[in-house]
Amino acid sequence: MTTPRRDTYTPETLLSVAVQVFNQRGYDGTSMEHLSKAAGISKSSIYHHVSGKEELLKRAVSRALDGLFAILEEPAAREGQAVERLAHVVRRMVEVLISELPYVTLLLRVRGNTATERWALERRRDFDHRVAELLKAAAADGDVRPDVEVRLATRLVFGMINSIVEWYRPEARGASGREVADAVVQLVFSGLCRAA
Amino acid sequence: MTTPRRDTYTPETLLSVAVQVFNQRGYDGTSMEHLSKAAGISKSSIYHHVSGKEELLKRAVSRALDGLFAILEEPAAREGQAVERLAHVVRRMVEVLISELPYVTLLLRVRGNTATERWALERRRDFDHRVAELLKAAAADGDVRPDVEVRLATRLVFGMINSIVEWYRPEARGASGREVADAVVQLVFSGLCRAA
Repeated sequence: MTTPRRDTYTPETLLSVAVQVFNQRGYDGTSMEHLSKAAGISKSSIYHHVSGKEELLKRAVSRALDGLFAILEEPAAREGQAVERLAHVVRRMVEVLISELPYVTLLLRVRGNTATERWALERRRDFDHRVAELLKAAAADGDVRPDVEVRLATRLVFGMINSIVEWYRPEARGASGREVADAVVQLVFSGLCRAA
Repeated sequence: MTTPRRDTYTPETLLSVAVQVFNQRGYDGTSMEHLSKAAGISKSSIYHHVSGKEELLKRAVSRALDGLFAILEEPAAREGQAVERLAHVVRRMVEVLISELPYVTLLLRVRGNTATERWALERRRDFDHRVAELLKAAAADGDVRPDVEVRLATRLVFGMINSIVEWYRPEARGASGREVADAVVQLVFSGLCRAA
């Protein structure tokens, strides 16, 4: 048995431990016992901070969702040509995904078994819809190739961006968040090929 | 209790039941009991066909891997300009992913807890490496934009293609495999933007 350490957690630092455990074991597979062990404090100490694991999930996915929705309020996402606004949103989605990596990873793994998960899925759909609307507006402006089907393209672009959580490791020497964002914007808007 | 039905399975049809269960419950979370229930035959009948669940996993991921590696042997993947060969491989990867959807889904979820899973991950890495080599050759020919970093681009393109397993449903009215493959090739090589 490990001796429980003194509870010096804030809601913020406790959340960061919980998110790690959720991502490792899956939310469904995580018990208050697992959280207590990982944090090194008793279950009753955890209950002192939050009402239970669903509150931790809600706080964690809210952090990811708030980060994503805030992008849409940035001036460069609100003003100018739709295609430029879309490019800004795509770049910032990659940057938020990387700066909030564990929180966005958890959000993307949510499956809908609890009310909080269903609420998170609903908000994700809202966000996806807002981005799809931008792509549609860019197409209406004639700035998107006419042979691109908007719904399919939106899914594929989200697929590319979301896949980053599967391999990006901030501690590894490799591309920075900025470099990954540049690469995604280049690929999504201009493709691999050198212009003829 | 359900009455076990007469065992009319072939190794092929038993495999297709097992893959569904693996994809629903996860390979680790699937027992011979679960497989027996899903197939409606006794565990000993299953052992008549295969040595156990790991053999079923091996057969399932082999089917996905064989489909993917076969692409590299196709004439259009072996002859001609690297960029054309790469476009052929990308298109065919999407088509194989969709025609072998449950098998490729399982392959992409393999985590490395057993010898078979580690073997599958190793073969996936080989395949990814072969595709990255093609992209490198296309870049050396000057057919890829010089600002694209090959390793990063390979990850992002695989991310886009592999994400298809998360949303593509053959039974839903929507894009056909051919349309999805067209969209991926367009996006990957030419991007969203209309050429200036």
